[in-house]
Amino acid sequence: MKKHNFSAGPAILPASVLEEAARGVLNINDSGLSILEISHRSKDFIAIAAQAEQLVRELLNLSDDYAVMFLSGGASTQFFMAPMNLLNEDETACYVNTGSWADKAAKEAKNFGKIETLASSKEQNYTFIPRGWEVPAYAKYLHLTSNNTIYGTQFHWWPDTEVPIVCDMSSDMFSRTIPVEKFGLIYAGAQKNMGPAGTTLVIVRKDLLGKVKRTLPSMLNYTTHIDNDSMYNTPPVYAIYVSMLTMKWIKEQGGLTAIEAHNQAKGDLFYHELDANPLFHGTVTVKEDRSLMNPTFLAINEEVDKAFDAAAKAAGIDGIRGHRSVGGFRASMYNAMPLEGVQVLVDVMKDIAQKMG
Amino acid sequence: MKKHNFSAGPAILPASVLEEAARGVLNINDSGLSILEISHRSKDFIAIAAQAEQLVRELLNLSDDYAVMFLSGGASTQFFMAPMNLLNEDETACYVNTGSWADKAAKEAKNFGKIETLASSKEQNYTFIPRGWEVPAYAKYLHLTSNNTIYGTQFHWWPDTEVPIVCDMSSDMFSRTIPVEKFGLIYAGAQKNMGPAGTTLVIVRKDLLGKVKRTLPSMLNYTTHIDNDSMYNTPPVYAIYVSMLTMKWIKEQGGLTAIEAHNQAKGDLFYHELDANPLFHGTVTVKEDRSLMNPTFLAINEEVDKAFDAAAKAAGIDGIRGHRSVGGFRASMYNAMPLEGVQVLVDVMKDIAQKMG
Repeated sequence: MKKHNFSAGPAILPASVLEEAARGVLNINDSGLSILEISHRSKDFIAIAAQAEQLVRELLNLSDDYAVMFLSGGASTQFFMAPMNLLNEDETACYVNTGSWADKAAKEAKNFGKIETLASSKEQNYTFIPRGWEVPAYAKYLHLTSNNTIYGTQFHWWPDTEVPIVCDMSSDMFSRTIPVEKFGLIYAGAQKNMGPAGTTLVIVRKDLLGKVKRTLPSMLNYTTHIDNDSMYNTPPVYAIYVSMLTMKWIKEQGGLTAIEAHNQAKGDLFYHELDANPLFHGTVTVKEDRSLMNPTFLAINEEVDKAFDAAAKAAGIDGIRGHRSVGGFRASMYNAMPLEGVQVLVDVMKDIAQKMG
Repeated sequence: MKKHNFSAGPAILPASVLEEAARGVLNINDSGLSILEISHRSKDFIAIAAQAEQLVRELLNLSDDYAVMFLSGGASTQFFMAPMNLLNEDETACYVNTGSWADKAAKEAKNFGKIETLASSKEQNYTFIPRGWEVPAYAKYLHLTSNNTIYGTQFHWWPDTEVPIVCDMSSDMFSRTIPVEKFGLIYAGAQKNMGPAGTTLVIVRKDLLGKVKRTLPSMLNYTTHIDNDSMYNTPPVYAIYVSMLTMKWIKEQGGLTAIEAHNQAKGDLFYHELDANPLFHGTVTVKEDRSLMNPTFLAINEEVDKAFDAAAKAAGIDGIRGHRSVGGFRASMYNAMPLEGVQVLVDVMKDIAQKMG
């Protein structure tokens, strides 16, 4: 049975990428060796890593003011690595608390400087993106989480500020165009739109570095990785390889403008059904804040919940259960999810409404 | 042409493991989904992670006094994470400097306590393992690098001390039996005998934890990872999967006793030829310190060097050039290298001697 993978992450990857990724495990570039067993200093892998960086630059129209790194340790490592590298003890960074990950990011930053929370929707179970806040000019940076995987909200606007934005884009990186120049640092775990789990993309405006007074372990200093083209130590070779393949696929789809239109079409299809269907309702209270990556929704009662869960499984739909802290359902629709996959989901919802509505 | 992969790491993996690893990329456990796109919270991956831990415990006869973690960031991250978690500012840890990695480990530790170098062969370009040193009883731990990938030396004995040993076993983990009870902490990047690049095995005696006063970022605290079965954040799924497959293969070979005998046989075959062949000599000055993982050797002149390099390539031998800091050759013979591969290498050496000797 054809599976429709709505997992929140690690998440669906394009079929053509998976096929090439499997071939690489057996024989990379006709070398007779596996991508898993070649040196990271081999010409094959150096070319892969260079192509990965080049694709990041192309997709985002990135200028030379920015450095690109492929690190490990996930976005959770960036929660403390960003402030360690950007913030002195006596300086202030501002955070907006839009979800569990944003909350954790702020908590981890507190060891390295003064952290001000400008706004939060925590008390309302993160059901919207807070508005009406301003970034003080003394802030060293503003930290945002662009998409909240658990709560199904997403920033569809960017604050009007000169303060550089540090942004966790783990769950919507490469899902849409972004005004790169507003960002001082962007980080994203690969395992949503970019590739498998195991590498983290970090993009930083180089002039922000080298200004903190603390002593940094070599591995936690962005400059170490920039100076060594992300090969100070053995990089996560396979995760970078598959990320490169996925970014190549994104480019082949027409780049971020085309991807954004495709994701909008999927979101429109899904949310239209959600708004029309009497048996389900979204968990996000402000419609303009709804995520195009992770629509979260609840059935109106337990009977519908169970029936829908069973019908979805029967239709080959996988990974649709909501995060344990929200419950209900979450239909993650990353780049590689085709419109047809969303149609299957919508059809199941319609069907349930017809039977039980 | 059949390739013989003598790379120092990432390194040769068993053919059967690579085949299963490629199948997993297309379809894991007949789920219709790729191992690259399933949730780390899925039952499939939770079973894989549990099996990986179980195999570590079985192969090493590990008691419940020890915790097992699969982290990311490589051994280079353990260089500072170990002292951060084990050493207070006013406490002393002892290091033995047997190579570039040992040297780096000590340097990174200096930010977190008092570091004493008990012995070093750095001035002699690391051509032997220093002897005749004692571990002071006040030492919180003794740090060793069990095998020195670049310089071709290896500890074939363990110091007689009650002080817990913290050991970087990146390049000889699972290549032989070890007296686990002597070790307080063992860490190893996967990309030699254990799997592909992208995860780091950390084994720690649990009673050593929770004794430092400093505030640790969550991701740098071993306790975080232990309490969450290495799933505090998204783990490097594929690297753990392939490591599990490789450990399963080790078990199928008869476990570490059988693997050790096999590695000894390969070492005997190679070093016998090296000692007999007039055109080559080893870089290690004390024969008892020679590595069974990474024999390093030089040709007697440039003509032999070039001829051997060409003949090796023609025989399908790959990755045999020495590290840039030593030059010459390095024939890494990790677990997955069969005796026949070493025989091909030895035959090329014999052949060169016959032609040019």
